[in-house]
Amino acid sequence: MNVVEEMRLLSLNQATIQTWSARDAIEGCARHGVGYVGLWRDKVQEAGLAATRRLLDETGVRVSSLCRGGFFPAPTISERAERIEDNRRAIDEAAELGTDLVVLVCGGVVDRDMPGSRQMVADGIAALIPYAAERGVRLGIEPLHPVFAGDRSVIAGFGEAAALAERLASPQVGVVVDVYHVWWDVHVHELMRGLGERFFAFHVNDWLAPPPDVLLGRGMMGDGVIDLHGLHATARASGYMGPVEVEIFNRDIWSQPGDEVMALMLERYRAHVLGER
Amino acid sequence: MNVVEEMRLLSLNQATIQTWSARDAIEGCARHGVGYVGLWRDKVQEAGLAATRRLLDETGVRVSSLCRGGFFPAPTISERAERIEDNRRAIDEAAELGTDLVVLVCGGVVDRDMPGSRQMVADGIAALIPYAAERGVRLGIEPLHPVFAGDRSVIAGFGEAAALAERLASPQVGVVVDVYHVWWDVHVHELMRGLGERFFAFHVNDWLAPPPDVLLGRGMMGDGVIDLHGLHATARASGYMGPVEVEIFNRDIWSQPGDEVMALMLERYRAHVLGER
Repeated sequence: MNVVEEMRLLSLNQATIQTWSARDAIEGCARHGVGYVGLWRDKVQEAGLAATRRLLDETGVRVSSLCRGGFFPAPTISERAERIEDNRRAIDEAAELGTDLVVLVCGGVVDRDMPGSRQMVADGIAALIPYAAERGVRLGIEPLHPVFAGDRSVIAGFGEAAALAERLASPQVGVVVDVYHVWWDVHVHELMRGLGERFFAFHVNDWLAPPPDVLLGRGMMGDGVIDLHGLHATARASGYMGPVEVEIFNRDIWSQPGDEVMALMLERYRAHVLGER
Repeated sequence: MNVVEEMRLLSLNQATIQTWSARDAIEGCARHGVGYVGLWRDKVQEAGLAATRRLLDETGVRVSSLCRGGFFPAPTISERAERIEDNRRAIDEAAELGTDLVVLVCGGVVDRDMPGSRQMVADGIAALIPYAAERGVRLGIEPLHPVFAGDRSVIAGFGEAAALAERLASPQVGVVVDVYHVWWDVHVHELMRGLGERFFAFHVNDWLAPPPDVLLGRGMMGDGVIDLHGLHATARASGYMGPVEVEIFNRDIWSQPGDEVMALMLERYRAHVLGER
């Protein structure tokens, strides 16, 4: 793909500009010529699902993914059932917004039992597959950085996420590759190449060394230590040809005007991800 | 091993009680009936190497490991040579203190080049092997939690550390397993079982979820989400029969009187690691 084609596939994950509503994010993308947006459920709820859909139709901005489903492990059967039910709502919302991808943050460990918690994740996703298939929505397992294994995702390694997706053996289930979570893995390139049709999404940002805060201290592309150009090249060589979301949780960036962040994001994406300097 | 034998193999890594000097730590171990201590080079330097050795001889407390060598990656050849030279001093100090183990924190990424930085680590350790062998000292590669991959260790996965040790193919090189760094890995038990003679050390503490601070927010055993009893059992089943260090970097614990921390550590070790409640 050439640079123009690549820039057409850029997506703003709205978590990058936390001060923007869903409406602001969609209009901001349209204003800056960004073709895709990654939306968050809470923001969509605030803006209204139907109103958001109308704005998408008016602007032509497309939704690359809806964040987020998951959080399957819970101590009781009824809590686990509630969470699966909530994931069904996420699938409905994704379909309504015209995206075929729900990003799954699988959930943390229950009762110090990693194998048991992982089984709850596998069972939860399996329970969703028929519902997702009927609506044409795919479930993207996002391996989270191991720093979140306690409270956010027991699926903490890229290899583990890939193996889980393979085991679930459904076209509805694949992997969301976010460089922040997997950049450090000695096998990251070969794991990307091995995903095949299960390579559902690719997210970029940067790893500050050391991170000022692991949750809200992600870096803008170019400010950290990740070989973004190399990982992006491998993503494309692996056959992933979809949108690339920029997803940066960073308090400093959130304190800046959204339009300035958009301009910086475009510049940094071109320079550090596409290598056009 | 029974509980008495296990308690004899408990070691205080002095990082757990940061306010104690090397002398305080050795005397504290003697006072509390703890047979082993893990020492830090800066603390030993402050106390004096010969004086520390004398105190060890007087008290009968043994050194389970010396922290730390490593930090091999650097931008220039001369800097890398300096770091290898510093590791030689660590080996000398370990020999003088009567421990056969230097713990390696391998060092962070240079110039966004993970493969290159990893090669610098492998080359650095390889360069030390003859020197270590002459002095009867072993080099323990500690896979660090991936949250430290940017600034402290590009050897961020247990599997990677095990593979590196195997590749270096020397009785001088093995792996230091600290639960804080590897607990989240889906393969942690099988990786422990696969180490064989390369299982050089085992460290315990706990993972708070979420951690209040990734560097200085480790938990006391029992305060977090790690299945310590299960991991310890696997360490012993894997054939590792050496000392077990308690290593906790935690500002709250550092603010408590050392003798209280020792008492708590003994109680929690017995309950949560050995499962004696």
